[in-house]
Amino acid sequence: MNTVKPNYTRALDLKHGRVDMSHGSGGRAMAQLIAELFAAAFDNEYLAQGNDGALLPQAQGRLVMATDSHVVSPLFFAGGDIGCLSVHGTINDVAVMGAKPLYLSASFILEEGFPLADLNRIVESMAQAARAAGVPIVTGDTKVVEQGKGDGVFITTTGVGVVPDGIHLSGDQARPGDKILLSGSIGDHGMAILSQREGLTFSAPIVSDTAALHGLIAAMLDSGVRLRVLRDPTRGGLATTLNEIARQSGVGMMLHESAIKVNQPVEAACELLGLDPLYVANEGKLVAICAPADADRLLAAMRAHPFGRDAAVIGEVLADAHGFVQMTTRLGGRRVVDWLAGEQLPRIC
Amino acid sequence: MNTVKPNYTRALDLKHGRVDMSHGSGGRAMAQLIAELFAAAFDNEYLAQGNDGALLPQAQGRLVMATDSHVVSPLFFAGGDIGCLSVHGTINDVAVMGAKPLYLSASFILEEGFPLADLNRIVESMAQAARAAGVPIVTGDTKVVEQGKGDGVFITTTGVGVVPDGIHLSGDQARPGDKILLSGSIGDHGMAILSQREGLTFSAPIVSDTAALHGLIAAMLDSGVRLRVLRDPTRGGLATTLNEIARQSGVGMMLHESAIKVNQPVEAACELLGLDPLYVANEGKLVAICAPADADRLLAAMRAHPFGRDAAVIGEVLADAHGFVQMTTRLGGRRVVDWLAGEQLPRIC
Repeated sequence: MNTVKPNYTRALDLKHGRVDMSHGSGGRAMAQLIAELFAAAFDNEYLAQGNDGALLPQAQGRLVMATDSHVVSPLFFAGGDIGCLSVHGTINDVAVMGAKPLYLSASFILEEGFPLADLNRIVESMAQAARAAGVPIVTGDTKVVEQGKGDGVFITTTGVGVVPDGIHLSGDQARPGDKILLSGSIGDHGMAILSQREGLTFSAPIVSDTAALHGLIAAMLDSGVRLRVLRDPTRGGLATTLNEIARQSGVGMMLHESAIKVNQPVEAACELLGLDPLYVANEGKLVAICAPADADRLLAAMRAHPFGRDAAVIGEVLADAHGFVQMTTRLGGRRVVDWLAGEQLPRIC
Repeated sequence: MNTVKPNYTRALDLKHGRVDMSHGSGGRAMAQLIAELFAAAFDNEYLAQGNDGALLPQAQGRLVMATDSHVVSPLFFAGGDIGCLSVHGTINDVAVMGAKPLYLSASFILEEGFPLADLNRIVESMAQAARAAGVPIVTGDTKVVEQGKGDGVFITTTGVGVVPDGIHLSGDQARPGDKILLSGSIGDHGMAILSQREGLTFSAPIVSDTAALHGLIAAMLDSGVRLRVLRDPTRGGLATTLNEIARQSGVGMMLHESAIKVNQPVEAACELLGLDPLYVANEGKLVAICAPADADRLLAAMRAHPFGRDAAVIGEVLADAHGFVQMTTRLGGRRVVDWLAGEQLPRIC
């Protein structure tokens, strides 16, 4: 993102203006958009270098790199918007590797005609999320596509972080006997989006759980427990995330339905729409797998953090070469919890 | 990009299949698409970790991070496609900072209904470009949007590299007296896209110059000259790139039209369409600014590399607080070379 600002006669009209094709041209209009909107909001020493890439200090530790495109619809929803979501999502993907997130890049694909006021609101939300997380957006890019070739705005963020020595988290580290912990309730993000999309209203509003989890993760790592796996159960929900881990580690799992918290309005919305909350996306929750003797200590560390207040042990890892994830139900039965098949909720993140 | 592969009954139909919404669900269909198409093509030890981010070795040197979204239309063009372009473009943005590119991430926004055969061709092209450049695609993401909410495929790549000690290149380093060098002809990429879009044919075909320039740049750095600025003149063309540098450095420039190579078919196409090649995008060219005494040595180093064969000194940096870029024309006159205003060529990269 070249942040060099040419001379203009007039400032951008952030109230009534709209994105037009010239904002993606590489010329004067694009430079103005970047300078007055993006660089002004993201404001940091790296972006201010004004080159096409950012020059950053040497990083101490193994690197982690993660990327996510965000195409959520609607762009604004209860509890957040595509802007903060795109910051939280990538910070979480870096942090669940055991890394301290250091830098983000952000690339925008804008649709011609998109209101600059909405873009400004989204960019402000990103900037605030990045500042709150202490992870600057150091470089970026902007492209514009014709009306009908995009959908308002898509945002791709990439994160870089460093893993301290001695930490090794990976989806293939789960071992039979390990405990499975979940940091809080499931389904909030997905049902916030879906209920808004469908125009559903409930007695209590459903609010997305979108949040940056690196603070919670740092507290968990600091507790000194033997963590094996961390992952944030986003698209595909808790069920798909656990199936991925089971497959990677070559183990089975037994979950306990009664231990998995689902907020009442989420449960009601899922029932109404015939959805299983186990498959609904989360954006501020994590799954942790640890050595069995460490589960209590890990649980205490999680519950001491605001984003882990409702943490619980939700199951155990089993020896099972087939990698089946099963669950004891509230009624005392047993069911298989398979991968998500087909499409449950499009454009959830 | 989680590369864990669930069990399937059938392989992906890469001949007649199409992208559907389930390929973005986070579930079984997405996992299959990633495993059979992306992970198979990009194949490297980092991607094979199968987590949502890639764990990479510690990097020696200051980091550089650059990102670019690619929305080029058409997706396939003479000399390349969106796949290799997305690899080359980001490698170049990292390399012009003086960095050795180390890793790429790639994130895909696919439109429902897009042929898997085309996607496969694009991914193969990316994989080949990444292999040829020696820069692995270590992590990624895939999202799917409904038909009419995207345009086939958009690809966002992010690159990370390291800058060796002692190298400091930035757009604000140009000084009066410095020489301005260009690595070859201009306008080839933009006119290849545009002539294809408009259905124009010329006696000689116009072929995109898309290429990874980190090899050329390494040779230039190895020559030991005092390089001040490197930049690749993409969107907005040579004119806009030089205006950016002039603004950043607080200097003027005097270019010499006769020294700037424009291939004959590009010149003919520009004339026909009323375009100025100075503003047309390049994807395999670079501008270098160096201390005046080093220009000959730098020119020799550039000409010794296949991508710098047609390199030339095209002008000088002047003291000028207004930052004007001027040019002596072939006819002996003088003109101002301003920033690109408005939109010359939409969706060129």
